[in-house]
Order: sequence, then C-alpha cells, then structure tokens
Amino acid sequence: MREVGIVGVGHTKFGKSPVPFLDMCCQAALEAMDDAGAKTGNKNHIDQVFVGTMGAGMVSRISGAASAVVDTLNIRPAMAETVENGPASGASAIKLGYMAIASGVANCVLVIGAEGMRAVTGWEGTDFVATMLHPDGEYKYGLTLPSLAGLFTRLCMDKYGVESKDLSIVSVKNHANACHNPNAHIQRTVVLERITNPAYINATNPLVADPLRQFDMCPVSDGAAALLLVAKDKQDEYGFGHKKFVRIAGVGSATDTHYVANRAVPTDLLAVRLSAQMAYKMAGMTPEDIDVAELHDAFQILEIVESEEVGFFPRGDGHLAARRGDTAIGGKKPINTSGGLKAKGHPLGATGVSQVVELVKQLRGEATGRQIEGAKTGLAINFGGFGNNVCATIVTTK
Amino acid sequence: MREVGIVGVGHTKFGKSPVPFLDMCCQAALEAMDDAGAKTGNKNHIDQVFVGTMGAGMVSRISGAASAVVDTLNIRPAMAETVENGPASGASAIKLGYMAIASGVANCVLVIGAEGMRAVTGWEGTDFVATMLHPDGEYKYGLTLPSLAGLFTRLCMDKYGVESKDLSIVSVKNHANACHNPNAHIQRTVVLERITNPAYINATNPLVADPLRQFDMCPVSDGAAALLLVAKDKQDEYGFGHKKFVRIAGVGSATDTHYVANRAVPTDLLAVRLSAQMAYKMAGMTPEDIDVAELHDAFQILEIVESEEVGFFPRGDGHLAARRGDTAIGGKKPINTSGGLKAKGHPLGATGVSQVVELVKQLRGEATGRQIEGAKTGLAINFGGFGNNVCATIVTTK
Repeated sequence: MREVGIVGVGHTKFGKSPVPFLDMCCQAALEAMDDAGAKTGNKNHIDQVFVGTMGAGMVSRISGAASAVVDTLNIRPAMAETVENGPASGASAIKLGYMAIASGVANCVLVIGAEGMRAVTGWEGTDFVATMLHPDGEYKYGLTLPSLAGLFTRLCMDKYGVESKDLSIVSVKNHANACHNPNAHIQRTVVLERITNPAYINATNPLVADPLRQFDMCPVSDGAAALLLVAKDKQDEYGFGHKKFVRIAGVGSATDTHYVANRAVPTDLLAVRLSAQMAYKMAGMTPEDIDVAELHDAFQILEIVESEEVGFFPRGDGHLAARRGDTAIGGKKPINTSGGLKAKGHPLGATGVSQVVELVKQLRGEATGRQIEGAKTGLAINFGGFGNNVCATIVTTK
Repeated sequence: MREVGIVGVGHTKFGKSPVPFLDMCCQAALEAMDDAGAKTGNKNHIDQVFVGTMGAGMVSRISGAASAVVDTLNIRPAMAETVENGPASGASAIKLGYMAIASGVANCVLVIGAEGMRAVTGWEGTDFVATMLHPDGEYKYGLTLPSLAGLFTRLCMDKYGVESKDLSIVSVKNHANACHNPNAHIQRTVVLERITNPAYINATNPLVADPLRQFDMCPVSDGAAALLLVAKDKQDEYGFGHKKFVRIAGVGSATDTHYVANRAVPTDLLAVRLSAQMAYKMAGMTPEDIDVAELHDAFQILEIVESEEVGFFPRGDGHLAARRGDTAIGGKKPINTSGGLKAKGHPLGATGVSQVVELVKQLRGEATGRQIEGAKTGLAINFGGFGNNVCATIVTTK
C-alpha cells in the first residue's frame, strides 16, 4: 500500500464566523497550504480537493462547493468533489483523500471540512440537524438529536450506573482543555460544583432534553478545518517536507441501522466499534498503541460510550475512567485535548477534519498548553447520524 | 494498479418517478445487484456504497442518503458516502468507487446516481439547477443554465458556423435512439422538418433562451442508475462472474473556472478536454480506440463541442460531423445511443451513472435495437456546472 501522510493543517476559529461558507473553506485551506509550504511554485501539485459538509446545499444553497474552492484557490484543474456523510462528512473526506492517493489516481489531496451552522437558528437549525435521522422514520415523526441522546443517556444510566455528574465531569475536562486551544469556540473553565449543585443547577445548567442539561451537549458553531495530504513518495519532490510527516496508518468506517430503534442492543454503538476495529487492523495496531484520542462528544454520553467501544476501557466502565481522571491530560488515555465538540465547537462537516488537525498538532508537539508528551499515535472517531455511519482515523509518526 | 470492473447495472425508468428519492436509489441498486448475481449469500461482500446526487439535501431534505440506502438494502456495515459534484455527481461517484477498490480499502462497491428533479418545478426547479453556477457571482445575479447555454451557443454560431438546424439534427438523432431504450424518458421520434420549418417553428419548437428552442435542451426528469464494481481479483470468489467483466480502464476529472465569464476562450470546454486526456492516458488509449460514447447533451450544443474536445473531430467540425451522420448509430463515432440527456432524460446525479450503464450494455451486446456491433470500448463525459467540473470514464472489454 502506498504511504499517505499529512503535511499541512489549517483551522478557523470556531464559533460565529464573520465570513460565509466558501470563505471559511478557503481560509482553512490556505492555512493548511501555508503550513505545508505550498505556494505559487508548488501549490499546483494539489490534484484533488475534497470538501466534507453536511449543509452546503441545505443551509447555504450551494452546490459544487469543491469546484468553487478550487477556483478561488487558483489550483485549477485540480479534481474536486463534495462529500456528505452527516456530521461524519469530515472524516469521510479524509478517507476519500487517503483512497485517492493510495489508488494512484492522485498524489496530493487537499481535504476540507466546513459548516456554516449559525446561518440557521431556532427550529430551522434543529430541523437541519434532525435530517440526519431516518428520513421516513424518526425524522418524519419529529424526533430531534437532543431528544434521542436523552433517551440513549437514560438507558446508559439504568444499565451501567452512569450519573448526571459523570456527564458534567467530561464537560468540565473538555472546557478546561479548550482554554489552551486558541481556535476553540468556548474558551472558558467550568467549575464542576457550579453545574451540578442541586441548589442552583436549574439556573446554571438547565434541562434541555431530560436527563440532558446544557453542559451535557455541544454548542452550535461555524467553522472549517483543512489537511494537506501527500504520497510519501512525492513529498520531497513537491517540497512539502518541512514539517514532520504524519502518516495515515488506518482508516475505517462502518454503518449501523439507520433507525436507532432497530438496534439489537440500543446502548451499543456498533459502528464505532467496527470502524475502530477496521482502522486498528489496517494500522496493525491495538487500543494500547493510542497515545491521544479525539472522540465525538456531540453529547457527553458519547465520549463515555465511545471510549469503551474503541477498546480503551471495559464495557460500562467509561464513566468510571472519566471519574478517575484517566481521560484528562496527564491521564492514561487523554481524550479531547482540543476541547472536544463540547467546548471547541461542532460545525458538523468540519469536525472530523478538526479532530485530525488536533492529533497532528499533538504528534508534532505543537499543542501548546495541552501537549501530551511523547505522543506518537492518535485516534479520531467521527460520528454520523446517531451512530448510523462512523469513521475512524489513526495517524502516527511511528 | 488493481483491476476494477463493472459486474452489474441497474436503471430506473427516467421521467416522473412514482416513488421518492431513496426508493429510486434502492430500485436501481437492487437491479444492479440482481444483474451481478448478488443475493443473500454474497451481497454482504459489498463493502462500500457511494450515492451521487446534487439535490438530496436541497430538494429532498435528506442527509446521509447513502447510510439510509445501506440500511434498506440490508448490507450493513458497508461503508457509505454521498457525493455531490453538481450534474457530474454520478461520474464522481464512479471515480470514487474506482479509487476505493484500487486503493485496497474496498473490494466491492455499489455506485448509485439519483435525482428527484420533479419535486421542484417552475422557478424553484430553475433556481435549484442554477445553484451550480458561482454562488457569489452568476447565481447571485440571476443567471440560469438555459440563458448561459444560449450565450454559449451564440458564440459557437458566430465562431464556427453552427446553425440552429445542427442542434435539431442532434436532437432528432437522440430522440430516434431513445425509442430503443425502454428506460428513456421520452420515447418518441421527432421529424427534423417539424421542429425546423420557419412556417410553424414557434408553435412546434418555441424559443426558450435565444437562440435555444425547446428541442435544443433536455427535459426535467427523475431517475436513478446503479453499477456494481468489483476488484478483478475478487470477482470469482464473490460469485459475481456470470456477466462479461467490463473493466474501468480510465477515470479522469478536471475543473475549469467557476465563473464562466473568466474563461480565456469562452467557446472552449477545457475541463472536458483535460478530463478526457487524463482518462485516455490512464487507459493507454486515444480517441481512435473509442467505439461508442455517451456525451453530456444537457444542451445540444454541448454534444457538438464535447465531440471536438474529446478528440473525435477537429475543432469547429462537430456540427459538420453531426450533419454527415457520423455520430448516429452506424456512423463512425456513434454518440448517445441511449437517447442522451435530450431524450433519455437528465436526472442530474443519475446521469453520469446512467451513461456508463448504457456503455456496459453496448459492450455486453445487450443494447437491443441500438447496438453498435463489436463495440469493445466506450467513453462517457459527465459535465458539472457549466463545464466547471467534468468527469470522463473509459470502460472496455479489451
């Protein structure tokens, strides 16, 4: 198999974007190109662009976004496609970038993930997000993502003894991490007592979808992130060699039932397990090899259950690991050093790419203030729908 | 490079679909799976699904369409992504299917192209199609595709002597071909005299966007098409060997300026030329090797200019070749034996896949009534935007 790696990363400040969708794409892309040393002389080596987004069409009424980006970046006639896989669109774009180079069709691929979420607010925003549920089932009956996550959390509480406070522990950890990430949407520490004390919890951390409260789920953010991928055998020739080469060691993805209600064990996230297993197998690695992970905590319960499904902790022990501090910086398996979706923000299509940007920074030793010392291998889980389509990516400097 | 081929094809009847978007996808997919001999015993060898569509989000308000299709077809946990590249979404999905197998990540890929166009009518439909133009430029100023094609046609008339009657000649040919394609939207012969005679042309063939008349452009159609792709080295093991293996010999794609007005030579379709050259190079072939072609005649002028850009005829001679009958069945370079977009219909995301379905039928000798005897190699051109993103596919039994 041809070796494929990441030589440049870019990331906008997540939050409310002052610029529209395509400008966010180009801003992240230009930063990744600069980071890789791509300029007038060699930027035309980029022969494929993938843009991962869920809502370019539905929200921004743009088709052919990838072609527009190619033109604005002045890298014609690069090939260009837009990829949609709900909130896992970003990692899907990375997987396709890997395929494009490994197949020999392309040598250098620009991968962008982006979303302009805050263009739609209130019911319109909730409805847009809900389109990722089964179009003829859950969506039609008005189920929303927070309500579904609430039901899922309740089942985990009953089955494994997860407590509301465990969700808050994850939230507090991710907020603390985000304070060291200048691109995070919310850079503010949160005190556990303040969001859990029954005396004032309804004021500081109000219920959204029982049992979920405001700090148990991510905010609504705009943002974009980008990666420049290159074949190892072309890196020097193209002049993209001045940063450490971060190899894509494994990509995996898997689908689960689109109707969540059809799952045999509704507390399992089967597609997380299968996609991670596929990525481990391709990388020739096990969970023990992972030094740092970005998991998809759109809801805090997901970070807990995903940490079990990817093999870090035994089934039902994820919340205990969080309580022990195993997933904090300095713990055994640091998770979401970037701040996670909870505090860094979750612009749907951007998230999968943003996760890998963080892993690359960790593996390069550039994660100032949140650095995991000696990190050599990272895992990202990007979660689409309510787990109906999940992508896993393993990157390494080994 | 790993050998990748097509072992199954499926195609809905284009026109007004009695069923919604996802059902069209599944109908075409099931037909392709049946055609390949995929059933309970071996259908789970399908490890990746790509759905090419421009409007699943904008028109049908569906995200994650590919995941929903996987679930309905009961081929979980197959990987799944939706691909958007305007009207070239279908061929993009084929290209990605090729990459997925050639990279070794997948062995068997289901490629679906689909569009539910007729859910949006009138200005809403025109607007949906117009989103493929530059979002900050042409689209914002209200330019539509027919008006742009009208301007382009006028330039070709002035520069190369193309006449309105030449467009009608192409149209009449494609309508005649479609009469032999049971899946074509419009299966009706058209008499040249009837749509060109000045005495009654305004009644039989009214102006739409000067100089373009009704018969100079495609209708609005719903439809879906599907291909089952497999690695040659897995074909026998998976039991997909009962039909002739049609090898994907070349895939190419290229972008051009997103603003049409920015092109140095506005009558050139540079991305058609570059994508075809890329596919020829990969296939180790030249235009002389092509026995049958499906070109993207969303407007009849495009078939003429594309036939030049892909190297069949010298620059400016495409309309003369059409006049001579070179592009008809029995001519030197038969084009659009399926009826083309003009008469078979043009459900945007479906078209690129539908074109290759026709080529496979030709190469298998299954194109009853429209068969090109001894056809061994075919070329398809799928055209996105107004030529801002074009994909070329070469298939062969050689």
